[in-house]
Amino acid sequence: MFDKIDHIGIAVNNLEEALLLYRDKFGLQLKDIELVEEQKVKIAFLPVGESKIELLEPTDPDSPIAIFLQKSGEGIHHLAFQVTGLEEKLKALQAIGVRLVDEKPRHGAGGALIAFLHPRSTGGLLIELCQHKQ
Amino acid sequence: MFDKIDHIGIAVNNLEEALLLYRDKFGLQLKDIELVEEQKVKIAFLPVGESKIELLEPTDPDSPIAIFLQKSGEGIHHLAFQVTGLEEKLKALQAIGVRLVDEKPRHGAGGALIAFLHPRSTGGLLIELCQHKQ
Repeated sequence: MFDKIDHIGIAVNNLEEALLLYRDKFGLQLKDIELVEEQKVKIAFLPVGESKIELLEPTDPDSPIAIFLQKSGEGIHHLAFQVTGLEEKLKALQAIGVRLVDEKPRHGAGGALIAFLHPRSTGGLLIELCQHKQ
Repeated sequence: MFDKIDHIGIAVNNLEEALLLYRDKFGLQLKDIELVEEQKVKIAFLPVGESKIELLEPTDPDSPIAIFLQKSGEGIHHLAFQVTGLEEKLKALQAIGVRLVDEKPRHGAGGALIAFLHPRSTGGLLIELCQHKQ
């Protein structure tokens, strides 16, 4: 079903401050910073092994990440698994009773197709499935 | 500094219920269940790619995981990176101002040496470093 952990999304108040930890102290490589206008979020990508840390800074008080930070403070926002055949996997999960936030794949950061599962079906955890371009 | 994401520790109220999702619906393989008496926790290990999901169920109301569940509900409890030379890495992190929960490696699940960084140094996130037997 899942090939690997694609990334861990961590909500932070300030990307530069978070990079002082993840890049400068932990020594992870900052591969890219991407602005995702639709989600009003700026994302820093730091690979580690076959996965990535994604640091998520809101660019607007309306951003879902800003709302998460207000409610829960800094911390892990979501966990993403890499899959192939995302559309079929979503159908298969739905057929066995997993609720979906996104019934169809949509475009996410880095040109990937993504979909979120509904936290009510996952013990409150926000889980993303993503499929990268081949 | 870090070789890969070793595991993601997810606090759950009931291991059997959580396995209905992670094993039965997501199709992850349940590799092992281990009782860690010292931490009063029962841990299910489910590999995914080079990493693992660790589902953590408290075995006692005094367990750190029970206290976490009371405060925050089910969700990600900690993020663990695999390292080599754990003792030296702890010293190096401390030397650049990262606070540690464990100043010396201690024994964790699966025979690994582990140490936790202090959440005050990591934006509130509980980060574990672990070194496996060679």
